[in-house]
Amino acid sequence: MTTDLNRVPVTFSERLSTLRSSKQSVLCVGLDPDPSRLPSHLLSAHPLPAAVEFFCREIVESTSDQAVAFKMNFAFFEALGDSGLQVLRSVLNGIPSDVLTIADAKRGDIGNSAGFYAHSVFDDLGFDSVTVSPYMGEDSVAPFLTQTGTCTFVLARTSNPGGADFQLLDVGGEPLYRKVARDAVSWSTDTPGTTGLVVGATDVETMSDLRHMLPETPFLIPGVGSQGGSAADVMQASGNGPVLVNSSRGIIYAGNDQDFAKVARNAAIQTRTELGA
Amino acid sequence: MTTDLNRVPVTFSERLSTLRSSKQSVLCVGLDPDPSRLPSHLLSAHPLPAAVEFFCREIVESTSDQAVAFKMNFAFFEALGDSGLQVLRSVLNGIPSDVLTIADAKRGDIGNSAGFYAHSVFDDLGFDSVTVSPYMGEDSVAPFLTQTGTCTFVLARTSNPGGADFQLLDVGGEPLYRKVARDAVSWSTDTPGTTGLVVGATDVETMSDLRHMLPETPFLIPGVGSQGGSAADVMQASGNGPVLVNSSRGIIYAGNDQDFAKVARNAAIQTRTELGA
Repeated sequence: MTTDLNRVPVTFSERLSTLRSSKQSVLCVGLDPDPSRLPSHLLSAHPLPAAVEFFCREIVESTSDQAVAFKMNFAFFEALGDSGLQVLRSVLNGIPSDVLTIADAKRGDIGNSAGFYAHSVFDDLGFDSVTVSPYMGEDSVAPFLTQTGTCTFVLARTSNPGGADFQLLDVGGEPLYRKVARDAVSWSTDTPGTTGLVVGATDVETMSDLRHMLPETPFLIPGVGSQGGSAADVMQASGNGPVLVNSSRGIIYAGNDQDFAKVARNAAIQTRTELGA
Repeated sequence: MTTDLNRVPVTFSERLSTLRSSKQSVLCVGLDPDPSRLPSHLLSAHPLPAAVEFFCREIVESTSDQAVAFKMNFAFFEALGDSGLQVLRSVLNGIPSDVLTIADAKRGDIGNSAGFYAHSVFDDLGFDSVTVSPYMGEDSVAPFLTQTGTCTFVLARTSNPGGADFQLLDVGGEPLYRKVARDAVSWSTDTPGTTGLVVGATDVETMSDLRHMLPETPFLIPGVGSQGGSAADVMQASGNGPVLVNSSRGIIYAGNDQDFAKVARNAAIQTRTELGA
């Protein structure tokens, strides 16, 4: 973020827009290091935490010029046990400054605890953005919405099968996810631009509807590739607003031999190209 | 858990029931170690992670005969940075075997990631139970519902102000939390007894209604004490079903001088007595 006090701090959307132009990309690469899918030569050469760290750092190095963001899924790092956070931090610190970072932690707790999670993610670890769950309402999300330049992606319409269980329920004439999206954006009036939304690629009509309602809000769009949505449909539905389109497994597990990083790079190039900018 | 293969494994409710009888208690002590509220003599004598560890271990030692469970709020441990998980594990390992443990992590992610979170909480760390968010639906919760003897407390009606934002919305003639509660219990048919619910003490009518609908489901009840619900009302509303009534700040910060552990013990005795069994 800028340190020039005479300038208005840039928002997350502005940072994203600059990167989108310069890199001609909306691609977010998801780092979901599942041990059962890592290249076997890495697993046989290193203890698991070191193998995960090496794998992620190689993926970062080989794909960072294609991506505007990396999303790190905390589940896979926490599953490494005591060294999980060190591995996460090491991978994070290897991400170049021209790529935004997303802590995919799906936090959600009451105000007091949420403040500690926000401190951990933004101040201690230094992520640019985070994912949070809306179920506990405003005081569980608001503590994240305090730093211009960061973005808190609130789960609105998720792309997993269970996303339909509650998110599509009618609440006063509209589906729950729609009310969640509108309310979550309203919670950031003190620090405009800090609310983003998670909107799955599997439901293009929803995306189009939400974009119409919230033209300026950053959307983090999972589910392109292995979960099913097509690149062209997603880009059309997300309109001209700020977007990050995530692909995890389709890129990081494209290969699993000695040349995995090169194969991942080729998959990233292909996905970035399909998405356009 | 039993290792006698001829016996049916005991459920979490059965374990809780045994402890409730023997200890005459339904008290859960919440370990929310907020650095700004720790006794100053600890903070001046130790680096923060060591002060948190010492504080929690003293609280555990002084209150464990009064409690049937300890709930560890992950936010406060993760905020300690790289050593957070070691501190959490050290405190957890100091909890006697006659007290159940709750990982208050409020996880919630898609199936693949949820499986890793479940592994981390139950297999790596060895907690007896966990809190999870329902917003992403069945496939985000089901991976936790696989081990008889454990319990996964799904957020239903939370006691924070924002709990009213979405949980009370009418969905087809009932509030959302009610549908969440019923659905979450239905997801554990393969491993009965593994679903529990978080039901805040601030809304006694809700608790009574949910207990009527789900007489056998364990309720984790936060919000007694500093957040407002009275012990007598809560115990009446929760009926004869399995309950854990949590108090965090009212016990662990009852004192903050050299004798903090003794003062916490007295607060735990008083709360346990007020709750009855």
